[in-house]
Amino acid sequence: MRYVIVGGVAGGMSAATRLRRLDETAEIIIIDKGAYVSFANCGLPYYVAGEITERADLLVQTPAKLKARFNLDVRVNSEVVGIQSYQKSLTVKTATEEYQLSYDKLLLSPGGQATIPPLSGLSNLPSYTMRSVADVDAVTAFIEREQPQTIAVIGGGYIGLEMSESLTNRGIKVHLINRSAHVLNTVDEEMAVFVEQELREQAVELHLKTQITAITADQKVILNDGRVIACDALIIAAGIKPATGFLEKTPIALGKDGGIIVNEQFETTVTDIFAVGDAILVPQLISKEASLLALASPANRQGRFVADVMSGLSRSFKGTLGTSIVRVFSQTVAATGLNESDLKRLGYHYQVLHVMGKNHAGYYPHATGILLKVLFNKDDGQLYGAQAIGQAGVDKRIDVLATAIYAKLTIDQLPELELSYAPPFGVAKDVVNMAGYVGMNISEGLTQPIQWHELAGKVAGGAVLIDVRSAAEFAKGHIVGALNHPLDAIREQPLTIAKETTLIVSCQTGLRSYIAERLLTQQGYTVYNLDGAYHLYAQIQSEKVEYK
Amino acid sequence: MRYVIVGGVAGGMSAATRLRRLDETAEIIIIDKGAYVSFANCGLPYYVAGEITERADLLVQTPAKLKARFNLDVRVNSEVVGIQSYQKSLTVKTATEEYQLSYDKLLLSPGGQATIPPLSGLSNLPSYTMRSVADVDAVTAFIEREQPQTIAVIGGGYIGLEMSESLTNRGIKVHLINRSAHVLNTVDEEMAVFVEQELREQAVELHLKTQITAITADQKVILNDGRVIACDALIIAAGIKPATGFLEKTPIALGKDGGIIVNEQFETTVTDIFAVGDAILVPQLISKEASLLALASPANRQGRFVADVMSGLSRSFKGTLGTSIVRVFSQTVAATGLNESDLKRLGYHYQVLHVMGKNHAGYYPHATGILLKVLFNKDDGQLYGAQAIGQAGVDKRIDVLATAIYAKLTIDQLPELELSYAPPFGVAKDVVNMAGYVGMNISEGLTQPIQWHELAGKVAGGAVLIDVRSAAEFAKGHIVGALNHPLDAIREQPLTIAKETTLIVSCQTGLRSYIAERLLTQQGYTVYNLDGAYHLYAQIQSEKVEYK
Repeated sequence: MRYVIVGGVAGGMSAATRLRRLDETAEIIIIDKGAYVSFANCGLPYYVAGEITERADLLVQTPAKLKARFNLDVRVNSEVVGIQSYQKSLTVKTATEEYQLSYDKLLLSPGGQATIPPLSGLSNLPSYTMRSVADVDAVTAFIEREQPQTIAVIGGGYIGLEMSESLTNRGIKVHLINRSAHVLNTVDEEMAVFVEQELREQAVELHLKTQITAITADQKVILNDGRVIACDALIIAAGIKPATGFLEKTPIALGKDGGIIVNEQFETTVTDIFAVGDAILVPQLISKEASLLALASPANRQGRFVADVMSGLSRSFKGTLGTSIVRVFSQTVAATGLNESDLKRLGYHYQVLHVMGKNHAGYYPHATGILLKVLFNKDDGQLYGAQAIGQAGVDKRIDVLATAIYAKLTIDQLPELELSYAPPFGVAKDVVNMAGYVGMNISEGLTQPIQWHELAGKVAGGAVLIDVRSAAEFAKGHIVGALNHPLDAIREQPLTIAKETTLIVSCQTGLRSYIAERLLTQQGYTVYNLDGAYHLYAQIQSEKVEYK
Repeated sequence: MRYVIVGGVAGGMSAATRLRRLDETAEIIIIDKGAYVSFANCGLPYYVAGEITERADLLVQTPAKLKARFNLDVRVNSEVVGIQSYQKSLTVKTATEEYQLSYDKLLLSPGGQATIPPLSGLSNLPSYTMRSVADVDAVTAFIEREQPQTIAVIGGGYIGLEMSESLTNRGIKVHLINRSAHVLNTVDEEMAVFVEQELREQAVELHLKTQITAITADQKVILNDGRVIACDALIIAAGIKPATGFLEKTPIALGKDGGIIVNEQFETTVTDIFAVGDAILVPQLISKEASLLALASPANRQGRFVADVMSGLSRSFKGTLGTSIVRVFSQTVAATGLNESDLKRLGYHYQVLHVMGKNHAGYYPHATGILLKVLFNKDDGQLYGAQAIGQAGVDKRIDVLATAIYAKLTIDQLPELELSYAPPFGVAKDVVNMAGYVGMNISEGLTQPIQWHELAGKVAGGAVLIDVRSAAEFAKGHIVGALNHPLDAIREQPLTIAKETTLIVSCQTGLRSYIAERLLTQQGYTVYNLDGAYHLYAQIQSEKVEYK
């Protein structure tokens, strides 16, 4: 049996080593275009930052080590330029030769390649992508040689944000140019604004809803809002697309954006040809919508999975949640499942909730806040997705929620999750549990949340906004038009507003406003609770003011 | 409606505030024996350590604040000395009076009290428990006044370990006296030995399988192994028992160790009397065995739950996993579900696996190891429990596994969990995913693990132990009798052992030995894999050598 694998990084190499463990006698050949296989692609921005100091640490494996340990035939600097699937053969091209290579089973794991926007004058500036060891070598050499003052990063996705942080930490002024209204399309806008605040606080110059018009011969970047930035280089992190150009003339079917179409066994439309990784279209676990996903963990998982399938073990892939995380200076933002944009686009009926918690007991030193957003179905409780931002413990909460969503737990089961608690590690009622309590309150009609974007409409319709924080907190900043009536005074000094008036209650994070909502509802008012309260509203509104 | 709640800390106060949110008109009276309600009991050891510096931070709420916010009638320094359930009334005793208090619904949340072992000469030494603000005040006053050199801590459970750390960090020499063979009965012995190693490395004098025989008039502690320790004080952390003495003459049924018997609605055997928290017997989620559980999170959860029940909402409690965590100096150890001792005692058919992973990408700075043990059913894949130890990220893994166990996921689903991955936060194939892969390999017959305690028997039966680490690693330390044959040499220089010989393979953590097992099995050998490999075996064996 000869297995040929095209692409020797996450998915391809996981498949190769698993194939070997399952079959000592098989011939396993890995063809890779690049000079390195099995390298730490997710580590590249941290090497640029100088956090990872040894280049050798990026090179997880070498062909020689893979030969010794797994008897793999790894062929680097080799490009597949043709596939003759009718005779089960590839055409491989190297610097010196072109040859035919037959296979019994073929795995395609070519990965993605950076999208280069068609920029007028692009050649006027040194520009770098961040996909390979060669890329990182080039950018670090440039930085050391030229000592650049200012670099423009195009694209506010994961790589763009990680590079913004890395370059800033090296003392370089960063302009982050983002085409859409907010960075990070994995999270919704009211979550992204907290990332944007962090970027600005760390002196990254943020250009939202902005594109480059041209780059001049004297190395100036012209933006479509008229601004002109003098730059020393460009980092292009404007997304990736499947590196599937070599498949265009083959019978292997490609779908949206050139992604390879696969079935539940990661088999392509051609017999004995399989595909995994960034280049394939994978179904989302809940919606089943097929989309591209450029993440290391799923690629690794798919690689091992497809090796089992190729070896004849029975496996069936159900879909992906696309859990993702990124550190942006002192903040971490993570997400899993469907976000609100997805749900809206797909026509789901969904409920949103936001809850603020702490990473660990508030009375234990260095507790920091976590803002958690959960999306679910109010009627049957199904969890659709979650997003979180904070300085610590965000990964844990999103991992728990990813597990809960995968396991088809419902919103009312989140309070029952028994998460480890001691003061340095968690909170007796964790923010994940709290999200479940809030969700249950919504489902059972004990609270009626409205979202930040619904407030103006409700007020225009005659509702009165009551801010139940203390007078001191209110004085520091509040929503225009809000009346201040501290929670602890409501029983002693009842509101003098007619019971027919609709009230909206708010506080700092939503905890006190909920208590006020329960009290006022029982006093006979119709009450709505501003979900996420002032903390969320002030952030997203200040963004709007700044950019509308 | 008058609700009376006995005990105003975790469970009782959660119930009280939820009752108020559900019913603004109810009368809610909380009776507490102590001077403080709603205090941070889990924070007490950290206050002794000086990590939590403000005493006020321990006092989460005061009766005045609870009155203002929730209209609660909190009566501290008040003890319930009688319950007349036939007339729905309590007898309450204070320093100045004794009175009758009627109730419509009664919630008992009396908590636990420290077990004081009957020690001969106990009064010869200052001794302290660690249950209340008064306890912590007493011990901190003693330390500041007497500047003790040496303190003996009785009991290696959570409080005993936290106090050992806290006192050591204050410069006090600690003798930790533990009756059973290992500390921490929530984890199994081969996990506990890593905690014991950490304690010794941090200069805690550990006395395992040891009891105090007597305390002499000149303040010497005599141990049953003949050792004599000069001590300045004792911390008694020898476990807790339900504070249910006041219920003994009532019709409220008590079970094992005086725990209150409740049904799925936390109702006691007497109508309109409910109970939650450390004083009740709760069913384990999987085994349904009723036991005591002294943990803050479950108590809080039960409190809110029972308030719903008492208010007429439909709720049904299924059981608890008892997830727990403790920091011991630089190590963290956590557990969820059933441990191996439980499974053995209850007669379960179970499979054990150990897997070593990292808290985050190995190439990113400061990666540290996590040893994870998972217990499951090899036939149907049901997860029974998990334990982990390491310097970082232990809480996250156990929380994910607690969620998985609660959700009834099976071992073969663990690889599919999509946990957030970026180099500072995780590993592309997380240790939780790896546990799933190993479990699948076991279930599908691709690996045959044997446990540390099975090795001697197999070798006695004629099996040969092959250590596949490098010669350099082998030279640093190895299991007596092992043959060294590095993994990467096996294909080029095959073993010269007859194929009829049974082999056991081992390496450092189990990764290389599994690769060797697959290779040698396919070469025709019968092979077993030493689960946990040298890392685990050396630790548990050195303990045995030291103490047998």
